[in-house]
Amino acid sequence: MTIHILVTNDDGVYSNGLRMLAREMKKIGKVSVVAPVSEKSATSHSLTLHRPLRATRIGRNETYAVNGTPTDCVNLALNGLLKERPQIVVSGINVGANLADDVTYSGTVAAAMEATLQGLPAIAVSIAGRTRLCYGPAQDIAARLVRRIIRNKLPQNILLNVNIPNRPAKLMHGYRFTRLGKRQYGDSIVEKVDPRGEKYYWIGGDILGEKPVVNSDIEAVSEGYISITPLHLDLTAYSFLRKMSAWKV
Amino acid sequence: MTIHILVTNDDGVYSNGLRMLAREMKKIGKVSVVAPVSEKSATSHSLTLHRPLRATRIGRNETYAVNGTPTDCVNLALNGLLKERPQIVVSGINVGANLADDVTYSGTVAAAMEATLQGLPAIAVSIAGRTRLCYGPAQDIAARLVRRIIRNKLPQNILLNVNIPNRPAKLMHGYRFTRLGKRQYGDSIVEKVDPRGEKYYWIGGDILGEKPVVNSDIEAVSEGYISITPLHLDLTAYSFLRKMSAWKV
Repeated sequence: MTIHILVTNDDGVYSNGLRMLAREMKKIGKVSVVAPVSEKSATSHSLTLHRPLRATRIGRNETYAVNGTPTDCVNLALNGLLKERPQIVVSGINVGANLADDVTYSGTVAAAMEATLQGLPAIAVSIAGRTRLCYGPAQDIAARLVRRIIRNKLPQNILLNVNIPNRPAKLMHGYRFTRLGKRQYGDSIVEKVDPRGEKYYWIGGDILGEKPVVNSDIEAVSEGYISITPLHLDLTAYSFLRKMSAWKV
Repeated sequence: MTIHILVTNDDGVYSNGLRMLAREMKKIGKVSVVAPVSEKSATSHSLTLHRPLRATRIGRNETYAVNGTPTDCVNLALNGLLKERPQIVVSGINVGANLADDVTYSGTVAAAMEATLQGLPAIAVSIAGRTRLCYGPAQDIAARLVRRIIRNKLPQNILLNVNIPNRPAKLMHGYRFTRLGKRQYGDSIVEKVDPRGEKYYWIGGDILGEKPVVNSDIEAVSEGYISITPLHLDLTAYSFLRKMSAWKV
């Protein structure tokens, strides 16, 4: 039976990373692409509910450009846009890492989350670099993980967040299974004044540094390893929940 | 010392829920309001990075309308817009519940998440109803939780997600500390055709039902209890991470 893979991203349907991912996935099975028509970074897990969405078919293949978020793309793809339901969703290859707390902002990771909520296994793939990207190792690990998941399954409600150092395969040290690290965000607002004398603001998103976390995704990537982090969507803080039972409110 | 409370939401700065929350918080301390200028539901934890933001001061108080997401509002408020840094962030009172997997889409909850990432305790408050809202119980539990947190602290990285059944206080059964439930989402796309014969799509967001989860937020609210769920942002699936170490990729 042919494997049917949905490829999406948050950098937009015309991005190189998406093309490289789709090309690699075609070696494994049938590929459908449903991705935002333009860049949608930092859109997180947002859904477009207040306006309708368009899905424009591009070329002869099952490739659609959607005027919405990565979450919209996956939701549309799995709920009627594609004739056949895919068996797995792969999001990326993103330009720039999605590590630590950044995963909560990431459109790339959100697309994989949406697949998980819709009952499918999913992988988010990002390269920790912004220029002169080495796609080879990202393509390779994505293919290995897809093959492994098709063969052995992932547990329901688990997705994989994969970050790859931006270096050629021969300089890669291997891979590690990691946990999310912890960022320290800084004062990140840039205030400016427009020609009419009114203030406006840019969100900068400075990262001051990281708090040390053993076996974190940040650590793995900084040491030259591919980081593979299993994520789930149950945000319940269980250990604190047990302590809370003593609260009187 | 006066407590300084930041109030925000995702229904917009002119919503009733926000007004009711701010009014209640003013009994506890100094209140600043920084909220989206219009409704921003389902924007999740998205940040606006591709265009600058405006923050328009409304009236004489520290109340700002921002042309961005709830996450933008909290980020701006804590990184320079407000003269003094608040000690706690309260988001709401939202029209409609934010339960189970829905928290990953919610702008109300995302505002509280952003506060957590910026190092502040935070509470998201939602009423499980859409019409004839009873704000009293939501105001009351928000005030109690704020007072408790100011006195006893919350652990770093924990936020509280509070959902209140839409009924008057005398019909409320009490409160429960809960975990997130589990939704089952359905086929939720509505396909239409425009006057030019082109298809377009609405994301519906149907909820088919819930998977049974012991002591879930869904269960508490459906049984007439206020649900208080502690959340954290570490999405690492630890138990699966341990199993994964045997993987060969």
